[in-house]
This record gives sequence, C-alpha cells and structure tokens, in this order.
Amino acid sequence: MQGNQQQQAYDRGITIFSPDGRLYQVEYAREAVKRGTASIGVRTPEGVVLAVDKRIRSPLMERSSVEKIHKADDHIGIASAGHVADARQLIDFSRRQAQLNQLRYDEPIGVETLTKAVTDHIQQYTQVGGARPFGVALIIAGVADGEPRLYETDPSGTPYEWKALAVGADRNDIREYLEEHYDAEMTLDDGVGLALSALASVTDGGLSPEGIGVATISVEDERFEQLDERTRREHLEANDILAGEDDETDEE
Amino acid sequence: MQGNQQQQAYDRGITIFSPDGRLYQVEYAREAVKRGTASIGVRTPEGVVLAVDKRIRSPLMERSSVEKIHKADDHIGIASAGHVADARQLIDFSRRQAQLNQLRYDEPIGVETLTKAVTDHIQQYTQVGGARPFGVALIIAGVADGEPRLYETDPSGTPYEWKALAVGADRNDIREYLEEHYDAEMTLDDGVGLALSALASVTDGGLSPEGIGVATISVEDERFEQLDERTRREHLEANDILAGEDDETDEE
Amino acid sequence: MQGNQQQQAYDRGITIFSPDGRLYQVEYAREAVKRGTASIGVRTPEGVVLAVDKRIRSPLMERSSVEKIHKADDHIGIASAGHVADARQLIDFSRRQAQLNQLRYDEPIGVETLTKAVTDHIQQYTQVGGARPFGVALIIAGVADGEPRLYETDPSGTPYEWKALAVGADRNDIREYLEEHYDAEMTLDDGVGLALSALASVTDGGLSPEGIGVATISVEDERFEQLDERTRREHLEANDILAGEDDETDEE
Amino acid sequence: MQGNQQQQAYDRGITIFSPDGRLYQVEYAREAVKRGTASIGVRTPEGVVLAVDKRIRSPLMERSSVEKIHKADDHIGIASAGHVADARQLIDFSRRQAQLNQLRYDEPIGVETLTKAVTDHIQQYTQVGGARPFGVALIIAGVADGEPRLYETDPSGTPYEWKALAVGADRNDIREYLEEHYDAEMTLDDGVGLALSALASVTDGGLSPEGIGVATISVEDERFEQLDERTRREHLEANDILAGEDDETDEE
Amino acid sequence: MQGNQQQQAYDRGITIFSPDGRLYQVEYAREAVKRGTASIGVRTPEGVVLAVDKRIRSPLMERSSVEKIHKADDHIGIASAGHVADARQLIDFSRRQAQLNQLRYDEPIGVETLTKAVTDHIQQYTQVGGARPFGVALIIAGVADGEPRLYETDPSGTPYEWKALAVGADRNDIREYLEEHYDAEMTLDDGVGLALSALASVTDGGLSPEGIGVATISVEDERFEQLDERTRREHLEANDILAGEDDETDEE
Amino acid sequence: MQGNQQQQAYDRGITIFSPDGRLYQVEYAREAVKRGTASIGVRTPEGVVLAVDKRIRSPLMERSSVEKIHKADDHIGIASAGHVADARQLIDFSRRQAQLNQLRYDEPIGVETLTKAVTDHIQQYTQVGGARPFGVALIIAGVADGEPRLYETDPSGTPYEWKALAVGADRNDIREYLEEHYDAEMTLDDGVGLALSALASVTDGGLSPEGIGVATISVEDERFEQLDERTRREHLEANDILAGEDDETDEE
Amino acid sequence: MQGNQQQQAYDRGITIFSPDGRLYQVEYAREAVKRGTASIGVRTPEGVVLAVDKRIRSPLMERSSVEKIHKADDHIGIASAGHVADARQLIDFSRRQAQLNQLRYDEPIGVETLTKAVTDHIQQYTQVGGARPFGVALIIAGVADGEPRLYETDPSGTPYEWKALAVGADRNDIREYLEEHYDAEMTLDDGVGLALSALASVTDGGLSPEGIGVATISVEDERFEQLDERTRREHLEANDILAGEDDETDEE
Repeated sequence: MQGNQQQQAYDRGITIFSPDGRLYQVEYAREAVKRGTASIGVRTPEGVVLAVDKRIRSPLMERSSVEKIHKADDHIGIASAGHVADARQLIDFSRRQAQLNQLRYDEPIGVETLTKAVTDHIQQYTQVGGARPFGVALIIAGVADGEPRLYETDPSGTPYEWKALAVGADRNDIREYLEEHYDAEMTLDDGVGLALSALASVTDGGLSPEGIGVATISVEDERFEQLDERTRREHLEANDILAGEDDETDEE
Repeated sequence: MQGNQQQQAYDRGITIFSPDGRLYQVEYAREAVKRGTASIGVRTPEGVVLAVDKRIRSPLMERSSVEKIHKADDHIGIASAGHVADARQLIDFSRRQAQLNQLRYDEPIGVETLTKAVTDHIQQYTQVGGARPFGVALIIAGVADGEPRLYETDPSGTPYEWKALAVGADRNDIREYLEEHYDAEMTLDDGVGLALSALASVTDGGLSPEGIGVATISVEDERFEQLDERTRREHLEANDILAGEDDETDEE
Repeated sequence: MQGNQQQQAYDRGITIFSPDGRLYQVEYAREAVKRGTASIGVRTPEGVVLAVDKRIRSPLMERSSVEKIHKADDHIGIASAGHVADARQLIDFSRRQAQLNQLRYDEPIGVETLTKAVTDHIQQYTQVGGARPFGVALIIAGVADGEPRLYETDPSGTPYEWKALAVGADRNDIREYLEEHYDAEMTLDDGVGLALSALASVTDGGLSPEGIGVATISVEDERFEQLDERTRREHLEANDILAGEDDETDEE
Repeated sequence: MQGNQQQQAYDRGITIFSPDGRLYQVEYAREAVKRGTASIGVRTPEGVVLAVDKRIRSPLMERSSVEKIHKADDHIGIASAGHVADARQLIDFSRRQAQLNQLRYDEPIGVETLTKAVTDHIQQYTQVGGARPFGVALIIAGVADGEPRLYETDPSGTPYEWKALAVGADRNDIREYLEEHYDAEMTLDDGVGLALSALASVTDGGLSPEGIGVATISVEDERFEQLDERTRREHLEANDILAGEDDETDEE
Repeated sequence: MQGNQQQQAYDRGITIFSPDGRLYQVEYAREAVKRGTASIGVRTPEGVVLAVDKRIRSPLMERSSVEKIHKADDHIGIASAGHVADARQLIDFSRRQAQLNQLRYDEPIGVETLTKAVTDHIQQYTQVGGARPFGVALIIAGVADGEPRLYETDPSGTPYEWKALAVGADRNDIREYLEEHYDAEMTLDDGVGLALSALASVTDGGLSPEGIGVATISVEDERFEQLDERTRREHLEANDILAGEDDETDEE
Repeated sequence: MQGNQQQQAYDRGITIFSPDGRLYQVEYAREAVKRGTASIGVRTPEGVVLAVDKRIRSPLMERSSVEKIHKADDHIGIASAGHVADARQLIDFSRRQAQLNQLRYDEPIGVETLTKAVTDHIQQYTQVGGARPFGVALIIAGVADGEPRLYETDPSGTPYEWKALAVGADRNDIREYLEEHYDAEMTLDDGVGLALSALASVTDGGLSPEGIGVATISVEDERFEQLDERTRREHLEANDILAGEDDETDEE
Repeated sequence: MQGNQQQQAYDRGITIFSPDGRLYQVEYAREAVKRGTASIGVRTPEGVVLAVDKRIRSPLMERSSVEKIHKADDHIGIASAGHVADARQLIDFSRRQAQLNQLRYDEPIGVETLTKAVTDHIQQYTQVGGARPFGVALIIAGVADGEPRLYETDPSGTPYEWKALAVGADRNDIREYLEEHYDAEMTLDDGVGLALSALASVTDGGLSPEGIGVATISVEDERFEQLDERTRREHLEANDILAGEDDETDEE
C-alpha cells in the first residue's frame, strides 16, 4: 500500500518522471492497448500480412464499422489495437503524411519514413503538458521499392521493426506462438496462415470468417488488399481453425 | 472504499489514464448519456428510422421544444440522448459540416463521412486538456447514393455502424428487444413498428402519439421526414401499443 | 458524510463529470437561480406576459434599478431570476444578437433563434475551462410573425418552450398553480391576471403595484410594453390580490 | 467546524459555485469593502451629495492623498469604500468610459450608462478565471439632463439605484439613520447635512472639517464640486456635529 | 493552530480574498518590505529629502552598489525598501514613464502622476494571476512647478502622500520620531537633519557617513542631488549623531 | 519515511528547487537514462569510436530498428541511452542544426557547436513549465578540422567533453574499466577494441556481432561509418570477447 | 516539524511570499549555487582577476569542458558557480547583450550595464509564473574606460559590486580569507595570488595547475585573457600552494 501511495504520487501527470525514471502515464496507456482485441502482423519475402480480431458486441452491429485494419496509402496498411478513437486520429495523421509525401516528392512514402513521422507525433503527447498520450499501438505494414517492411508504434512513441508481432490482448501468448512457428522463407499465403493460426491459438473454438479481418501487401504488386470473406474462410479451412457456425455474437 | 479512493485518484482529469488503462471521464460521460431518455434507430432496405421518447416534465412544457430528433441535412437525421445542451453543439457542428461539404464538393455529404467528422471532433475533447468530454450519444441516420446507413457516436469519439440500436436510458433492454425482433428484409413501415415496439417494451402502459418523435429517410426519395401526430398514432395503433389518453404528464 | 465527501470530489471543476454522469457546477448554478426572486411567463393566443417580483431591501432603494424585466428587441422581452450581474451579461448578449440579426437579414430576430443563440453561449461556459457557468435563468418572451412564443434558458444551456412557467424562488409552487389554472384560450388580460395570481399564491398579504413588474407583447402590435403602475394596480384589484399599503419595505 | 470545512471547499476559486449557489469569493470581496471607511451618497431634487470619512493614520500623512471622492467627469463624482488600489482601477476605467462617450457621441455620458459599464467590467472578474473580484464598492453620483442620479456598484457587478445610501464600515447603521431621516423634498444643503449627520451618527465625538470629504453636483449647473474646508466646517456647525479640535490624528 | 490552518487556506494564491476580506499575499509582501533596511523621506517648504540606511555585509562590498536611492528624473528621486531586485524593476518602470512623459508632452512628469502610474502597475500584480506582488515600498520625492511632493507606494498599489515618512525596518519607531520632531516650516538643511536623526534614533552608536545615503531636491533648482560623503559627515556632526570610526562592517 | 515525504514535496514539478537546491525531476530523468542499455564513446588521435549494446527482446524484432547509433552529419555520429522516443527528438534536432549550419555558413557544423545547441535545447525543458525533461543522454562524437571530439549531454543540459565515457546501464562499472585501460596514444582500431572490451566487461558470456553496434569517424576521412557485421565479428575475435552462438535472444 | 510543515506550505510556488516575507524558491536556488565548486573574483587598480576551481570527476573528462570562466566580450569575463546548464543560458544572454550594445551604440558595453541587464533577466524568473529561478551566481568582471569593475549576480536578481568575492562552495570561508588579506593597492599579479591563495585555503593539499582556471582583464589593454597552464603553475609556486602531482582525479 505504501508502494501504491508512492506510485500515485507520480502517475497523474504526464510531464513528470517517477524517482525510478519511469513515465507512468505512458505505461498506463500501454494498458489501454491491452484492453483492445489483438492485431497481428507477419512479414514474408513475398509480402506482409495484417490479421485482426473483429469480434463484435451484438449481431446488430456492422462488423465493417469495427475499424481495425486501415489503408494508409496504396502500398501501406495499418492495424491497430487499443483506444479506437485515438487510433482514428493516428490513421488520419498517417494518411495526411502519405499524401504530403506524394505531393512534395512525387513518390510514395517509405514505410519507415511514415512510421517515424507517426512516432514523433506520438512522443509529443508524452512530453508536452495539456494532453494525454495516445492509448493505442499500431502495426504499420507495407512494401516500398520491393522491400516488405513491418513496424510497431507504441504509446511512448518508439518505433520497432519486426519480422512478426502482435499488439493488444494476449500479446505475449501470440508472440510466443509466432516465435515458435515463424519461418523466414515462407510464402505470403503461409504468412496469412501463421497470422490466423496465432490468433486462433488464443481463441476458444476457432475463428469465423466474419470475426476476423485480413489484409496483405504483396511484393509483386505493392498494393494493399483486404481479403474477402470467401478467401478468409478458405484460409481458416486450410489451417483447420474454422469455427462452428453457431458462434455469431461475440464480445469485443 | 480502498477501490473508491484509488478510482478517485484518476477520474478527475480528462487527460490521464488510470493504471488499468481506462479514461474515467469518458466513462462518466457515458453515464450522462444513460440519464437521458431513449432514442432508437432502425435500418431497413427501404430506408432508416429514428424514434425517440419525448416525455415532458409538465403539461405546460411544449413538447416540440424537447429536441431529440434533428435534421442535419436533407438526407440525414440525427437522434440524441444525454446532456441536451451538449447535443445541440454536436448537431450544429454536423450541420456546418454538411453545408461545408455541399459547398466544397457540390454534393451531399456521405453519412459515414459526417459521422467520422463528428467523432473526430468528440475525440479531441477526450485527449486535449481544458474541456470536458461531450455527455451525449448520437444516432446518425441517412440515405446517400441509395444506401441506407445508421451510425452511433459515443462520448469516446468512436463511430459504430448498426442495423438497429438504442442509446440512452434502458439501452440494454431495448437492444435485446431489437436483437430478438430485427428482420433484415422488413419494410420501412415495419421498421417504424419495430422501433416503436422496442420503445414500448420499456414503457409501462403504452405510448402516446404526443410523447414520441419519429422520423424516416426513405431510399426512394432520400429525404428526412418527421412523421406527424396522426401518422404516429396510426403506427401505435397498428402495433397495438397506443397508450390510454389519461397519461398526459410524464417524467423525462 | 461519505456521500458528501464523494460529491465534493467532483463538484469543484466545471469540466468534469461525476461518476453518475452529473455536472455538479451546473446544478449549483441552478441553486443560484433559486436564490433569486421569482419571474413568471404566460403565453396566450393574444400575446405573451412577463411578471416579476421586484421586492427591495430598503425604501431608499429605487425599485426601477431592480432589473428583472428587460427589453431585448422591439418584439421580445426577457425576465430573469438568479445572479443579477450574470443576467445583465446575457441580456447584453441577447440585444447584440437581435441587432446583428436585424443588420444581417434586415428582419427582426425570431424568438426561438434568439433563445438558441443564448443557450449556445451558456453551454460554452459549462464545457470549456477557465470560467464558471451563468447563475441565472431567463424567460424569453416575444411575438414574431404573429406567433406568441415563450422560452426558458437554464444554466446548462438547454432551451425549453413553455405555455406558462416560473423561474427563481418558489418555482415549483408557482408551476403547480399555473398548471392548475392555465387556460389555453384565455385573453392577454387574463394572462396577466394568471401570472399575478400565481405570484400572489406564494406571497403573504397580496402584492403591491410598486413591488411587481409586468410586461406584455401582444400579437396585435408585436411590441414589448411595460405596464405602468396604475395599470398594475388595476390588475391587482381586478384579481383581488392588492396588498394593504403599509407594506412598503420588503426583503429581496 | 464541519460547516467551515465545507465552506472552504468552495471559497477558494472564483469560478465555482457552492452547493447552495453562492459565490464565496464575491462575498469575501464584500468583506473587503466593509474594512474600508464609510462613504455616503444622498440624492435631493436639487442635486446629489457625496460625503466620505477621510480619517488618517498619522498627522504626517496628507489627507488629500486619501482618495475617496473622485471626479469621473464634469457632471459625475464617485465615492469609494474598500480596497483603495482596486478603487483606483475602477475610477480610471470610469474616466476612460466618460471620455470615450464624449468622443464618440459628442455628449456627456449618462450616469446610468457609466454605472452599467463599470458593473459589466466588475462582473467579468467574477466569472472568468485568472483574476480576483474587485474588493471595492462605488457610489456613482451625477446629474445629466437635469436629473440627479445616485448609483451603487458592488463586487458582484450589480448596479443599484438609491435615494440615499452608505458603503463601507458601519454601512447598516448609517443606512438605518438615512432611512429614518431622508426627506424626498429636501434642499441640496439639507442633503449635505443629512449625509454628514449620518456619518456623525457612527462617529464618537463629532466630525472635524479636515477628517471628511464632501462633494456635490447640483441640478443647476451640473458640475462636480468639492466643498472647501471652510464650507465643510460651516455644514458641521450648522448640523451641530463639529468635533473638538484636539482630535487631529485618527485611525483609518 | 486552527487559526493558522484557516489562514493558510487563503494565503497561497494572490487572486483570492480571505473570508474576512484580506489579501494575504499582499500582506506578506509588506513583510518583505520590513525585511529591508529603512528609508526615510522628509518634505520641507524648501524641498524634499531622502535618507537611507546603506549598511553592508562585508567591507569588501562596494557601498555604491547598495542601491537604495535612485534618480528617476532630473527632478524626482526614489528611495526603496524591501526586495532589492523588485525595486529595480519599479525604478526602471518609473524612468521609462518619466521619459515617455517628456517625449509625449514635452514637459517633466508630475510627482503625483508618476506615483500613480507606479501604483497602477503594482496593483495589476495583486489582482491578475500568474505573478506575485512586488515585495518593495518606494518613497517617491520630487519638486515640480515649485511644489515639493513626497509619496509612498506600498505592495497593494496604494499611493499615499506624506509630510515625512519611513519605510522598511523599524518603520513604526522612526515614524513616531518623525511625528514628534516634524516642523512644517523647517529649512531643507533641517529636513536632512531630521531624516538622519530619525534614522539614528533606531541605530546603536550613531551613523557613519559611508553607511548612509542622502539626496535632496530643492525647490530652488528642482534638481535631484546626492550628497557627497563630506557633506553627509557634516550633517552627522551638526546633528551630533556621527558614529565612532571603528564600525566599518555592518549587517544589512 | 519522513525523508520520503519531504522529497515528494519537491519532486513533482520541474520548475521548483528542493530546499537543498536540487532539481529532482532532472535527477529522475537521469534514472531513465540508467534504464537504457549502455552506449560507449572512445576518442583516439586517429578518430572517435561509438559502441552500443543492441540486445533485443525477441528474435522476431529487427535489430536494425533498435536505434542507438545515429548519423547526425557526414562527420558526426551520436549514440544514445535512455528513453528511446526522447532520443529520437534530440537526434532530429541535431540533424536540423547540422543542416542549418551548412546552409548558413556553408561549412560543416563543429562538434562542440552542435553539442551546445543540443544542451541549450535540453536546458529549456528543465526550467520552463509545461513539459518534462528529456530522459536521455547522448554521446556526440565527430571529427572537424582534423580534430576528433567526444561529448556527452545529460538531462540537465550540461555538456561535458571526454576522452572516453559510457552512458546508460552499468555506466560506473564501464567507466572504471575505461579509466584503467585508456591509452591516449592508441590507434582507432585499439579504440574500437577498448570500447567493446569495456562493454564486454559488464556482459556475461561475451558479445555477439549481432548484439552490438559500432561506428567510427576517422581523422583521415572525417566520415561517419557504421561497421558491418563481419568487421564487428573480427573485432570481437581480436579482443577475445566473441560470445557463443547460442545466445540469440536477449533482454534489452 | 510544525515549522517544516509551515515552510512547505509556501516554498513550492515561485510566485508567492511566505508569511514572513521570504521567497523560498529563490533561497533554494541559492542552495543550488552552494552545490557548485567555488569561483573567486578580485579587483586591483591594475585590473580584475577571476579564479575558479575546475576539479573533475574522472581523469577521462576533459577539464576544458568544465566551463566556469567565460568570455562575455573582449573586455569582460564571467565566472559562474551552481547549476551549469543555467549558467550557460545567462552567459549566452550576456554575450547577446554585449553584441547588441556594440551594434546599437558602436561601443563596448559597460560592466555595470551588462550586470544590470543580466539581473533584470534573472528577476523576471522570480516573479512571473511558469518557470523556476536560475540556480546560479555569476561574477562579472571587466575593465571599461580604464575602470576595473567586479560584480556579482545572485538568484534573486540583485546586483552587488565587490572589491573581492567568492561564490559557490565554501563561499563564507573564502570571503573571510579575502577580507583578511585584501589590499586595495595590490598589483594584478598580487590579485591572482590572493585569489589562488583564498581558493587554496579551503582545499586540502594545495592546488594543481590543471585543476584551476584563471583569467584577467588588465587596465592596460582591457582584454580578457585566460592564463595558460605554465603561468598558472608559476603563480601556484610563487604563492607556495602547488599541490603534489599525485592528485590528478578529484571530485567536482
């Protein structure tokens, strides 16, 4: 309880460090990320994969409005986890950055360039007063100049590059699954399979094609593409993780 | 009580996260929504329906001044629940956005476009200091390019798309009713009936035509229309939920 | 006491909600309204009536300086209750709005238009930090295009339209009186009588013509007019509520 | 003590209401007014009178620097009570308003117009954060268009018109004296007499001509005039309230 | 202790009144004045005198850098007591005001005009938030149009005019001495003598010419002049208050 | 515990000193630096060396995205330790300063000039309110005009020049190693060896070429160069500190 | 402890006075000065001397980067003690002031003029909110128009002129030494000797030429000059305070 009281002394202002050099508000924002459903990214030599959990609270809700995979540019997609309204702000920021780059340099923005612009933006909200950090993590995936790239942004504003990663709920369990099964030479289709299997590994009773979202950007055409329901179903069947059909309503 | 004290430590500033990653002020604003009377939206292939509870505190109050259904544009209506004065600000914001769109692009604003402009505006009030969140939820309903659309905005600034939904008091009970009775192929008239029956399901003694508001936007003419009292009465009779006439004064 | 302590945690900042979704500062501003003497509005088919309690603290004070009925425009009057200095700010705001409307559109401002401009202004003071809410309620009464209208603005910034209403001290008792005696078809003179009788119903020993203020806007000439002392005395006599003359000094 | 603690919870910020709808900081500013020596105003058909207590702390202090009566314009004088430095700000504000009026409309400012400009200015300091209320009350007296007028401004920013009034120390006792002896038909000289007698009624041992200030604005010439020491002495003698000469030093 | 706790509740913000109408921060600033060594002003028909205690902490400190008498303009001098760095700000302000007056009106600034400009500046720091009051009192002495004038500014921003006064340490004892010995008809030389005798009355063992500063502005030439050490010594000898020479180091 | 409570009273606002003259927030920011992995700089007559610990949390993370050595200009490199997102801001600031210098003076920026620009920027965040200090230390290394230079910036904004230094975790142990083994006349290759040996001295089981980063700027060509993995391996072998290959995953 | 608690009530905001008229934050900033190593200034008829303690924490640190003596202009040097990063800001400010003066008036800035510009700048940080005071004291030494001058600036923003002084650690002991040995007629070389002897008087085991910094500005050429190591050694030998050579590393 002593410990609690001391922690409380330092965690209510974003502009201060605790005596052990931590920024509690940033750490709490990371908790907000964990409250969101999982999003997964996988990089293969043939392209990058984004897969997300799109469970909904009611059968009356339109799944399409559960925004977890976003197109940032023709060649870049972003998956998010955490505070939805915050994610929307960062997605909008990303799109404006991509457009600006196209306008200024007449060429598509690099995946790393975009990631760093986003993390710089996030960092400002952790250092300057009068606002709170963003309670969201993004997976920024894209292909530029033939190179597939996969990045994470976290609430502190740090960019990380990954071969495969998960953000949101069950992040650690999914990462363990990914570490165990990742194969640096797999095909893009295998990448989709790995992402979905990893997601299924933390879900009871398999996945339904309606309850997930999948997008890929292949090295071949460098275009962001969302997989339609039939294709999603085929992937689930191929990987033997298709849920029974009586599981329509689910908890986000 | 311990728990209470800890909660209090994090719920009085909008710009901070609690240790478990929650934004208490946003959650309290959701309570303000629940304090308002219910509003309901239903989407049918033939158009969208808005229905609201307009009970008043005194027979001397003009029911027409209980603003719960608003015209945002020729083809878009908005129903609100929660803090009335806050709702008015968002309605005004919506109208300006609609006009701006018309001016800039010479075409009516999309329902989704409008919804996202509103939720972005709401989100700002949850991240930047110096103001409180909006204590109101909106149902934004409209038809554009022949497509009926039905959205919700909540105090966190998250947009959701629905087939049918309720906001405000008794939200959960009404949603259960809607989930049970929703039929994806119903007519617009059936939609009005469903909305009113759902509202009646949480009201003792039936509804009076004066005590409710109903508006529709049909796919046919894409125009927002408020139903007059006679039509409202017919719908109540048709659905067998017309109240006895001795129930004039009611509590909002 | 527990309850008290918890309430105190949320009622000292205008920009925050309490856990049950209330804005305490707005509710306290409503208490400031109740500390003011009563003001009454009555709408009849022939026009609208404003009647106010103008009791003073000392016989040396000029009753004319107790500002409770104000002319906002040729066709609109405003009665106030609550914090006097705050009322003056809103009256000034109303007059500027009326003039602006005349200037811009070359026509008198609508009663509803004016009311909503005022309530939008009030709402800002309940959401954005750095100021307190207005501790005043207004009755805005007017006739435009032949239509008599009667509105209330409250400290939350919500507009209500009424057939007859009271604000300030004894608001509930006066409203009960009005509900019991209101007749939708009465003449303007009857309206004045109802307003004064309602005021007298909460005053011991009747009213004196000096201790009250009355104004009307008739449908016939659409002009705000304050009733002179003789006419006020006639109304009091006609309604049998004239006080004995030995009651000069009174407590506001 | 409970009560005390609760009061303290609401009285340290000007921008908040207490649960019973009071603005404590404004009420405390009224206490600051009571800490100042008394100022008195009397209106007669022939003009207005200002009389003030100018007691000083040391015989070495120049009484002329105890500023309690100020000329605001040729036809308007102001007497103050309370926080001296605050009074100076409002006097300066009044003079600028008077000059502005002359410049804009080429005519002297009305007494009521000036009073309301001052009270509007005062009100701002009670609603918007970042400053404290003015700890001063003014008596604004003047003659315009042949009409003698006498106003009070208080720390809440409310204007009151009076026949005769007192602000500052012993305000209530002096008012009782004024109420008892006020005669609506008295001459200007009688007005001076009444003001000084009222002041003497709360002073032990009579008044000295050096220890008071008196100014008049007569209907006849509409000019602010300070009475010289000889005339002040004559008034004291005429009203039998001249102090013995051994009372030079006094406590402010 | 109760009392202490209550006082503490109101004395830490400059923008608030205590329940008894006091501004504690201003009163504490007056304590800062008392922490400074004494400064004295005396007015005679022939001119004004400023005399200050210039004791230093170490014989290595240059007495000339103990700034307590300042030339504000050719005809105005200022002596200060209290927080030295604050005094420098007000002196700079005074000089700019004097120059501005010369520039605008092509004539030297009046002593009263300057004093009031300074006190208005000081008052701002007691009403508007974001800064503390000035912890300094000034004696502003000058001759304009043949009139010797002597003013005090205090931390509340109130101007006082005096025949003779002291600010800083031992203020009350020195004032008693001045009240007892002041002669309205004395020569300027007598004025210097009175000021130094008053200072000596609170100093053990007499004054040294190095430990004091003296300046005069005579009616004859209206010029600020600092007395050199020899003249200071003569005055000390003439008034029999010259200290023994073994008292070089002293405590400020 | 007393001590703790007192410390807490002064460590939560960057703009205040503690009674013993310390700035706790700056000291806590230094703790944030210690939480980062170590970075080392060594200066030799032939050039400067930067060596960093690049351990990662998961084999799926790309080591290249662990940014610890940055190119600031052609002739200047920067190694960082501490809060990664803060480091990125300072690196960006450094690059802009370098470009600006090139633009303005048409010559490369001096190492000392750049360092001081950075530390001035850091200092602002420790004195002016509304932001927190930077939780990062930088080693700025470069060669200009044939002179190798090696600087440190710490969270207080103080610049230090070193012959060899470490920042981040185990700083003190590494410094002791450096002090013991530093040779002012060593070759650049020896410098790389010393830096890596120092890093190995606090690492169990030796270093892997993947887990470290090394960069040099030689006096000969004045160009920042990152050593490739083969070269890094050769240096590890040459210094007998190459780890066994089974140590792929490591904790940052 | 009572005392402690009361002190704490007033020492955490720079903009407030304590009940006894003190500014605690300024006093704590003086403690920050004492935490720095000593700097000494001596004035002689032939010029001024600055001498500083430049002990370092590690033999690997470059002593030249311990900035304690700074050239402000050709004819003015500044020595500092306290918070190093704050000192850098004031030094930069001083240099800009010197350049500005040269530009505007085409002549070198006066030593007093520069000092007062610096102290005015410092004072602002003690009165206006949103920043902390500067935790540094400066010795500003220079020769202008043949006059050697020696000033101190302290954290309150007060300028003092001295014949000889010390700031920083052991300030009082060094001052006593200076008071005892200061000779107003000594040569510049004697001045250097006095400064170094004073510094040695608080240092065990004598001084090393590397561990000190010395600068002079002579009346003859009015140029700031740092003494090289050989000259420093000669002075130490001449004054018999040269340390043994085995004392390389020292604690700052």
